[in-house]
Amino acid sequence: MASEEKSRRIPEAVFGRIPRYYRYLRELIGADVLRTSSTDIGRALGISPSQIRQDLSRFGDFGQQGYGYNVKDLYSRLSAIIGVNRNLDAVMIGAGRIARALAENPVFQMRGIHMRGIFAAPGECGQSGDGIDGFAVLPYESLSGYLRQHGADIAVLCTSKQDALRVCDDLPALGIGAVWNFSGEDLREIEAKGIIVRSINLSDSLLSLCCELNNTGPAQRKGERE
Amino acid sequence: MASEEKSRRIPEAVFGRIPRYYRYLRELIGADVLRTSSTDIGRALGISPSQIRQDLSRFGDFGQQGYGYNVKDLYSRLSAIIGVNRNLDAVMIGAGRIARALAENPVFQMRGIHMRGIFAAPGECGQSGDGIDGFAVLPYESLSGYLRQHGADIAVLCTSKQDALRVCDDLPALGIGAVWNFSGEDLREIEAKGIIVRSINLSDSLLSLCCELNNTGPAQRKGERE
Repeated sequence: MASEEKSRRIPEAVFGRIPRYYRYLRELIGADVLRTSSTDIGRALGISPSQIRQDLSRFGDFGQQGYGYNVKDLYSRLSAIIGVNRNLDAVMIGAGRIARALAENPVFQMRGIHMRGIFAAPGECGQSGDGIDGFAVLPYESLSGYLRQHGADIAVLCTSKQDALRVCDDLPALGIGAVWNFSGEDLREIEAKGIIVRSINLSDSLLSLCCELNNTGPAQRKGERE
Repeated sequence: MASEEKSRRIPEAVFGRIPRYYRYLRELIGADVLRTSSTDIGRALGISPSQIRQDLSRFGDFGQQGYGYNVKDLYSRLSAIIGVNRNLDAVMIGAGRIARALAENPVFQMRGIHMRGIFAAPGECGQSGDGIDGFAVLPYESLSGYLRQHGADIAVLCTSKQDALRVCDDLPALGIGAVWNFSGEDLREIEAKGIIVRSINLSDSLLSLCCELNNTGPAQRKGERE
């Protein structure tokens, strides 16, 4: 792949697969496997070997054709690509049930991400008395002041859809690099402004499951739709 | 598209996009828009118009080239494709924070999915005294008896990775059609047995965001990696 091509913007789908490779390699390390190949990884994850090689090639030269990968080396390089130890700072916006479930989730700590503060959604009252996991829930109005003073890499957006639109009017000016989005809104406007958005849309995911259930269930299999 | 081709298995990615079309159409209805086109939908969602037409064609004939779609008709057909009003039954397995956040989430009720019971993970104690939103948390051991008697369409899996493997040994015999999976495990084994799996992997999603942040941040944009 030409150097010019490599420097192009990497598609979101590639960033979506890298963590899956990383997780599988961690399993291999746990099982004392020393060497693997794109064929092995592909079989385990249901991804084609050529896709895996193409994804990795976007970040440099990896392994040799026919020789495969040293598991620990590849894991360590993927750690560097992901930036696992970069000590990123995060703030949470919204203080409902999803926020409550996430705040204590070990996923942040495991990845060296520091949750620095929890802010109420614009529509909620900041209740400094009623905290989450030791965090006081600060009023939304204090978010911009906090970010101007301390900054943050990631905003975890746990508001309603309506509040998300309001927050996204404010975010681009506040130096946030990425939004982990649980609001149910797509946030394409702030993506267009260069903020990285990764959305977990519970409703879409559940409907997608229902849709598949509705179209590949026993009725469909029996050919009733023919 | 030939009828034979239509009856082939529809890729998961298609089922992933249908809810996004559905959601966008609901927005159009809310904005009193009467007519739309694959070009309009594509622009709003960042999906190519031909992809949209191809996705819809898997479920029948939609609209006419150059004429577009009647918004309410298309919404109503997508509702039928998703099976929004099918009154599906769900059980939750695992009773931790994620389960707690989901149990009260309006996403189930809005889609006509009835949460019928919450069961502790195999590793947890079923605490019938300490319920979630009016549900007693039943011991895992009672799950198979419950399902044999009442059945359920969807299992919402909110256990640890280790417990997920144990549960997935048990599930195929229990008549569950689909698993909404929050465990962090991939569950490819039960997918291979014909159970539909839709996974929300918080760790992968967050790492994917970190990875993009690490590779498209200001340093990268300034060409420091060249």
